[in-house]
Amino acid sequence: MVQTRVTRLFQIKYPLIQAGMVWASDWRLASAVSNAGGLGLIGAGSMYSDNLRHHIKRCKQATDKPFGVNIPLVHPTVEEHLKIIIEEKVPIVFTSAGNPKQFTKLLKEHGITVVHVISSAKFAQKSEEAGVDAVVAEGFEAGGHNGREETTTLALIPGVVDAVKIPVIAAGGIYNGKSMLATMVLGAEGVQIGSRFICSDEAASHADFKKAVIDSKEGDTKLMMKNVMPVRLLHNKFFDTVAEYEARGATAEEMKTLLGRGRSKLGMFQGKLDDGELEIGQVSALIHDILPAGKIVENVMQEFRDVLRNPLGHLRQ
Amino acid sequence: MVQTRVTRLFQIKYPLIQAGMVWASDWRLASAVSNAGGLGLIGAGSMYSDNLRHHIKRCKQATDKPFGVNIPLVHPTVEEHLKIIIEEKVPIVFTSAGNPKQFTKLLKEHGITVVHVISSAKFAQKSEEAGVDAVVAEGFEAGGHNGREETTTLALIPGVVDAVKIPVIAAGGIYNGKSMLATMVLGAEGVQIGSRFICSDEAASHADFKKAVIDSKEGDTKLMMKNVMPVRLLHNKFFDTVAEYEARGATAEEMKTLLGRGRSKLGMFQGKLDDGELEIGQVSALIHDILPAGKIVENVMQEFRDVLRNPLGHLRQ
Repeated sequence: MVQTRVTRLFQIKYPLIQAGMVWASDWRLASAVSNAGGLGLIGAGSMYSDNLRHHIKRCKQATDKPFGVNIPLVHPTVEEHLKIIIEEKVPIVFTSAGNPKQFTKLLKEHGITVVHVISSAKFAQKSEEAGVDAVVAEGFEAGGHNGREETTTLALIPGVVDAVKIPVIAAGGIYNGKSMLATMVLGAEGVQIGSRFICSDEAASHADFKKAVIDSKEGDTKLMMKNVMPVRLLHNKFFDTVAEYEARGATAEEMKTLLGRGRSKLGMFQGKLDDGELEIGQVSALIHDILPAGKIVENVMQEFRDVLRNPLGHLRQ
Repeated sequence: MVQTRVTRLFQIKYPLIQAGMVWASDWRLASAVSNAGGLGLIGAGSMYSDNLRHHIKRCKQATDKPFGVNIPLVHPTVEEHLKIIIEEKVPIVFTSAGNPKQFTKLLKEHGITVVHVISSAKFAQKSEEAGVDAVVAEGFEAGGHNGREETTTLALIPGVVDAVKIPVIAAGGIYNGKSMLATMVLGAEGVQIGSRFICSDEAASHADFKKAVIDSKEGDTKLMMKNVMPVRLLHNKFFDTVAEYEARGATAEEMKTLLGRGRSKLGMFQGKLDDGELEIGQVSALIHDILPAGKIVENVMQEFRDVLRNPLGHLRQ
């Protein structure tokens, strides 16, 4: 099997991490991925603190394998969340969207492995200085919140790998064994996969959202709301309204008012496909089925092994 | 050696093509790359017809290997250009920015191998239907003119490879042997490299532009002028003006007036780094030296062979 510093760091079988995604990654998805040999993450970004505690407890019941929690450091109750994570002895935390200096020391003092999500070599270095154990380097093609630099995974990974000594996990554009190997050829020691797991039985996402994802075509996602917080969205009525606002140079305040509260829950969890915010990566165009999460892990790793054995063997002759 | 349908199609040693870039790719660069075993392309986009004929003639004198011409089909004298290409018996033509139905039949009737540049699976299919021999699939990270879909190379290649039977050449984000192998793992049968060859001795680009490219950092390029014709530019004073126009929702007409005529020549050929338009890819942040073009081909292929032999051998342990 393929062992890297990432498999050793998390004590997992495969260097494959399931992204902690809002309104999708609860204990069902995280435990299914961990049980299959990857690393499952609970997405705390869309959870109240008592809900987070519930999902952590259920995840511990559902798997004896390592799992983690992803938490955006801009979450309104981030401190309460971290208190629960520490109390519940979650072994691994992925932090994103904020300054890793703020809480890494606290988490490390409690023996927690800490990973921070970045979109540039510069912030990879800042994360390493803050003491994190690894970074996720997320490219422009990734779904949901994204960096302002717009650097794609292909152009991002080599620079991040050169900039830090800690392991780099690639994210954005990865959905099968070939794309997994491609990013590891660039120097990543593991991958984080998001959109592919939205299209899993265990994702908490609304069935209509999952269907919209597998039905989507190339060019159907775009990085929007760049003057507020860049986020990759699937095309729908809300997307068109955002595009209209942007075309006339709307201010950040106007965008925030349009966004309002609960837009992402409305779209991705409640299945209001017109008015909700639908976060997904560019690879949604390449995903055509909904599978059990464990089967996804198995398929990705099977293709990964095949293509690693003969990297150009699948080319037509 | 690595033989694919691309090496056989062009009768070249390596599946490595040098992009035909405006104000950069004249006979010196094209013949140097062809002599080194890749495929060199003359960039006709910035040439008057008599100038194009001169460069073709010189290229034929400088190499006995196959070479080609890249021509944007929106060029004002495209028919005159194609007439010269046919008269001078250029064996290979790469077309871009236009409808491949228009001239593919004419070129094929003269025994010319035709490749069209696309940025989506949909246009790859249209190109195949038009009779081209191969497509270049160019991702969002590429320099210069680019697709509206904003699909990155990592997310683009698998969809294009699935959509057509003809060979797919990957472009955008490729600058060394690892990134070359990464895109071929995704199914590309060859690669087209641009920015790395701007930083070559033989590129006709102004020395100050080359220096600006190797000094550039991550996030220094961005896809601009999306309401006219999307183009990836290096950050400079002109870029800031474009950004200001875009922030206030300027019309396509206003953008065209700002762009004016000769902006790209001013920046890339005459070295006016403040007021000129500087086209380059995201990998400019990863390129740190100017080398002979033949040496670039050699370095890329050496690393490619090494990493193909042991795709994960370079990961830290």
